[in-house]
Formats: sequence, C-alpha cells, structure tokens
Amino acid sequence: MKHIVFALLAGGLCWGQPDGCKPSSLNIPGSPYPCVYPDRRVAFRVAAPDAQKVQVHLGGAHDMTRGADGMWTVTIPPQVIGFHYYTLSIDGSTVSDPATRTFFGSGWDNSGIEIPEPADIDYYQPKDVPHGQVSQRWYLSKVTGKWRRCYVYTPPDYDAKKTRYPVLYLMHGWGENEQGWHTQGHADFILDNLIAEKKAKPMIIVMDNLNVAKPGEDAGIFSARWLWPAPAPGTGGRPRFGLNGFTGASFTEMMLTDLIPMIEKTYRVLPGRENRAMAGLSMGGMQTFLTTLSNLDKFAYIGGFSGSTGGFGGKFDAKTSNNGAFSDAISFNKRVKVLFLGIGSVEGPRTKAFSDALTAAGIKNVYFESPGTAHEWLTWRRCLNDFAPRLFR
Amino acid sequence: MKHIVFALLAGGLCWGQPDGCKPSSLNIPGSPYPCVYPDRRVAFRVAAPDAQKVQVHLGGAHDMTRGADGMWTVTIPPQVIGFHYYTLSIDGSTVSDPATRTFFGSGWDNSGIEIPEPADIDYYQPKDVPHGQVSQRWYLSKVTGKWRRCYVYTPPDYDAKKTRYPVLYLMHGWGENEQGWHTQGHADFILDNLIAEKKAKPMIIVMDNLNVAKPGEDAGIFSARWLWPAPAPGTGGRPRFGLNGFTGASFTEMMLTDLIPMIEKTYRVLPGRENRAMAGLSMGGMQTFLTTLSNLDKFAYIGGFSGSTGGFGGKFDAKTSNNGAFSDAISFNKRVKVLFLGIGSVEGPRTKAFSDALTAAGIKNVYFESPGTAHEWLTWRRCLNDFAPRLFR
Repeated sequence: MKHIVFALLAGGLCWGQPDGCKPSSLNIPGSPYPCVYPDRRVAFRVAAPDAQKVQVHLGGAHDMTRGADGMWTVTIPPQVIGFHYYTLSIDGSTVSDPATRTFFGSGWDNSGIEIPEPADIDYYQPKDVPHGQVSQRWYLSKVTGKWRRCYVYTPPDYDAKKTRYPVLYLMHGWGENEQGWHTQGHADFILDNLIAEKKAKPMIIVMDNLNVAKPGEDAGIFSARWLWPAPAPGTGGRPRFGLNGFTGASFTEMMLTDLIPMIEKTYRVLPGRENRAMAGLSMGGMQTFLTTLSNLDKFAYIGGFSGSTGGFGGKFDAKTSNNGAFSDAISFNKRVKVLFLGIGSVEGPRTKAFSDALTAAGIKNVYFESPGTAHEWLTWRRCLNDFAPRLFR
Repeated sequence: MKHIVFALLAGGLCWGQPDGCKPSSLNIPGSPYPCVYPDRRVAFRVAAPDAQKVQVHLGGAHDMTRGADGMWTVTIPPQVIGFHYYTLSIDGSTVSDPATRTFFGSGWDNSGIEIPEPADIDYYQPKDVPHGQVSQRWYLSKVTGKWRRCYVYTPPDYDAKKTRYPVLYLMHGWGENEQGWHTQGHADFILDNLIAEKKAKPMIIVMDNLNVAKPGEDAGIFSARWLWPAPAPGTGGRPRFGLNGFTGASFTEMMLTDLIPMIEKTYRVLPGRENRAMAGLSMGGMQTFLTTLSNLDKFAYIGGFSGSTGGFGGKFDAKTSNNGAFSDAISFNKRVKVLFLGIGSVEGPRTKAFSDALTAAGIKNVYFESPGTAHEWLTWRRCLNDFAPRLFR
C-alpha cells in the first residue's frame, strides 16, 4: 500500500534513469526524473539545450552538466528524509522544475521532492481504512471584504453519524497557503489512520490562509520578492520579503469574526473552548500563540510545530512575556489542556529552551522532537501525528 | 464582486507595471506581471539575468527583450478572452512562468493567464449566494489496483436538506486531470449561480481522472514527452505524446466498476439512468460518447464540449457508426433526454457538421456555439452553463 497513493500522479513506465533510482512520488505522470537512490542521493535531468549554466537548488546550489543531447544532469549527495521544495536556475532565472508537480511555498509554485522514509512508516499514506474528505469552502470575509478559501477535513463517519465534532484549526507556514496541510502535509491521511486505530478522536480540521489584509494593509507578506526586484514607487525600497507588516492581529480578528462563526454555522461542531484547538507550523505556530494566548476563553489546546512565541521579543519572562499569559501557572494549567511544542532535531535548540523555560515557570507543556528532520513537512506530519491523539480528551 | 475571488491569490499592491495594465487574476500574490491591457494585449516580465534568449509561448512564440536590470519584457498582441495555458522558453528550456499559479495541462504544471470577459459577465465568479462545496475523495480501484482521487461538488443545500440528488460525471481534457473543472473551469461557481437563480436543478458533480491504466497497460497518455526525449528501451521509439493506446475501454470499466458504485454508496444519490449524466471536454467528450453510447441503460444525458465521436473513424453513418448506437432514431430520442454538442466558434466546423448529420438522421441534439472562443476553458465554462440547466428535467 506504501506510496500507492502517488501512483496516479507518478504514472507507470519510467525509463532512462539509472538502476535503483526511483522516481520521486511528486513527479508528473511518467517523468523518470528526479529520482532517489536507496542511499537518498538524488538525480535530476533538465532539458535546456541552449543554456550556459544550469543548477539545482536543494540544500545549496548544485551545478548540472550538459550532455550532447542538450539534457543537463546531476546527482546530488544524500538528502534528509521528507518533503523539500526546490528550484532550478537556468542562466540565472529561478524557475520550478517542469518534471514535478508544483507546491505553493515562499509565495509561488515551487517544485517538490519527497525523500521517502523507511517503507514500514506509513502513518501519512492512504490505507484501506475509512477515509474522511477534504472540502474546499469559500466564504466572504467581513474583515477584509474579500472572498476567502479554506479547506475542511471531515472525519470518515461525518455523514453517517449525525453527531457533532470538535475542531482543530491548523495553519501553514510563511509563503504557503491553505492548500499546504492536505497537499504537502497529508493531514487527511494522518487523521484517517489515527481514527481507524482509535488513537485520535474523530475531529474536523480547518485549514485556512494566514494572509489577511484589511483594507489599506499590505497584503504582501508572502511575496516572492525576487520576481519584482524594483522597489515600489513611494515606498523607499521597503523590503517585501519576510514578515514585514505581519502582526497577526488582522488574522485573529478575521478568524474570530468570520472563520469560526462560518465553520460553526456550516458544520456539526461541538461548542466551547474545550472543543476547539489551534496549531500551526513555523509562522503558523507564531500565529497560533498570538491568537490563542490572547483568547484563552476560546481555545483549550495549543500547538506550535517549529514555531511558537519562544525566542521572539527578547528573553522569556513568565510574568511579562506574551502580555502575561503565562504569569499564573496554576490558572494556565487548568485552562490549557495541551500546550504542545514540536521541532525537528536538526532545527536547533530554541524550542527546547522555550519548553524548559515554560516548565521552570510551572507551565505544563509537551515537548516533541522529530528525529533527524529539518524545517520541513516531515517534521510537521510527525508533529500532527503526535499532537492529534492528545486532543479533546 | 467581479474577480474578487482571485483577490486572495493575486494580492493587493502591484507596482512597476504600465498604466492600465491589470495583473492577471491567476498571478501569485503581489505579482504585477503578467498584466492585461483593456485592449487585451498582455505584458510579461521575467527575471533571467544571464540568459541569451527568452520567449513567451502563448498563441505562438514571442521574443522578449532584455533590460539593463536583467529583466526581460514583452507586450504581445491582443489575446482571445478566456483561460490560456502558456510557457516560457529560457535558452531553449521550456518552463512555467514563476509569476503565476500553475495549472495541470499537457501533462505538467503550466502557467495560466485569464483574459477577462466584459465586467458584466459573472456567471463563473463567486457571488453572495449559497455555496456548495468541492470535496476531495480518495478511493481504491479494483480495476487498476491503485488509489484514485476525484473531486465531488455537492450543492449548497446538500447538508441541510437530506434529500437525494442526480449526478453529472464531468470529465477534463487531454493532459489535464481531476483538478481542472473546479480550478480552471469554476464548475462550482457556475452551478452555485445557476442553482441560486433556479436555472439548474441542484445536482452532484463528480470530477474524475481520465487516465486509467489496468495492470500492464501504458499509463503514459498524458505525458509531457519533451521532458524525456529519449525513446523507451525496447519500444522502438514509440511516441508517447498524443492519444496512443487510448481506447477509453479501461476508463469505462473503472467508471462502472469502481467510481459510480463508490459515489452511490457515499453520497445521497438518486438512482437510475434518468438521474445520471455524463459530459466532458475535448478528449473527455470523446470518452463521454464512448462510455455512454455503449451504456445507454445507465445514462440519459450526454454532453460533448469541443469533443465527441463526430469526425473520428471515418464518415458518419447513422446505421453503422458508434456500433449502431444511432441506428434507431425513435428509440434513441426516447432514451436520451439531452444530447448536447458544444464548441467554440473559432474551433472549426466539425462539431456543427456532426450535429447536422445527427439531425439529418433524425437524432435530436442541442448544438451550442460559444462566440469568439477557442479550444480552451472559457468555451467549456459556457458549455457547462448552457448544458447544466437542461439536465434532470
């Protein structure tokens, strides 16, 4: 069953590639490249007959070599397991590799490659268990005046059971969008499998878009700035790449005013804070802390996957940081059922330090470390797989 | 309300582009290019500092000009309204333009541009009416042994009304996939608007993937062959681009064995042929005719949008063509409630000729011609908008 999900996309016949090198599960139908060796080296091939210099950018820049047929090739060193965005540079032009499906990250549609985990790890693969569904939902935001799109996972028994469900609001990271958690993250398969094994309670998952700009606000926080290097007239060259202008306040306002009411009106949802969780990865984790810590009357479960408030805004002080949300440990521990801090082991010590500081201040929290993974979707799949079973108990 | 749907994607601030040139609704957030002038000329800009030759391929190849800043630009002549795939050529390498969202066509993720219709035409835009939802549905196919994905539109009142609905099976074209009809085609908004105006009956729409290969069959019918120009070992250079090997028989078998039973088990569906329609565009129209004409006990409504059996397999003969499906006009007209043939006016006369031949043979049919459009998604949006109101009456 392993990886059978992608057979539809990756097609059947594959030729022209070296022995033992398997096409990435994210390739377009039939494309033999990129392919991954058992030792996790990756081979790429690109048609660029008249180019002078072609590179693959994946964990650094790798020069490709031109063959007599105008095809450029390279095999790069073993890569970390998991999902990675990557790009090509063709004579200085940054583009996606036409041989893969594209995935929205860094504000545009990048190429993606999946370096497989060992074959016995299949918690995010489709299995022959009851499947929930992911639905696209459009709604008109009063806060922004614009139509917005979210995706909603409903569990396998949603239509049959007619009962009400708790809700997890699950956020993507910087430069990504509302498609990330079910396309790159496989949140739907992770929950299908957890629910089938009775490890997680059936729940609804709402995957929305962090990018909220009220009229007059700068909507450009997800910009792929290299596409338009000229500064905006009148902006004095203000950089558009990064988190400039991002406070999270507009997202919180939109979430409370538009998103949660729409979800609770549209789906069979259990009411109240003990049936409402929020989590997110990277910038989505920061947003989660910003939103929930100032609205603890509305959320009882909090998850930061490679992202939290830890390390931002100077040294952590339980009395004053986060507007004093952590100042009364006894009260906090009563109200917040799970405070989850996840991180990939190769991402650095900041999240562990934040967890330790919270613990020292008497704040109960769960620290989860994903072995051998980086700031990418495999870390976040593992975080969700560990976090979801803790919810709504 | 016009185009407000894409504000989420196209972002807010846009600078650096010429006066009066509006960013395409399909651009990534914040990208000022490509942009469309009121007279439908289109301006492109691409960062390629070290390239020798850069072209835009949209209705032919257009050379771009390098500026001192390494940005290449071109303004191309007025384009036909509608949705168009396009690509860049950078020193001979065919890639998508990083400035737009990508869309699966010709077997890979192309760039897309939308040349707007006049502002008062909004049948495929989101309006402030009740919205249905599009759900991703995975199912395991007995015929192929693989997991497959379809998307299912359920009408706005599906959850509230608890009634049963008729079903339209709606197919994409060559090189596209199950994402096309709701991403490029806006089938969901078209139906939301028709249902709100009581022009169409509420219905379920199933959008599946034409690519069905049984074990041992060639899955490569959607291949972007230019990506791997070397012939397959042992195939003698058999071309993989085009309809080679496509008979449609495996799709029909999968549809009857796997898809329809899964849909009728999973959703509240009205039973029987008079509650079942099938339509498709281009190759999906061919598939529709192949499947329905040999299974008239299962389908009462048939639609071909820029695609049918007309013109294939030699001269049309009502007695013998399509295994004699049209040989008894009286019986055919009793069983088939709507036989719909749509085409863009600039696509040529073949569909009109087929409609006339059917009419001459006594076969009732609806001929729909979309004014001023080509073999692209605007033709097919208009076809659906005309076809859906005729269903299930």
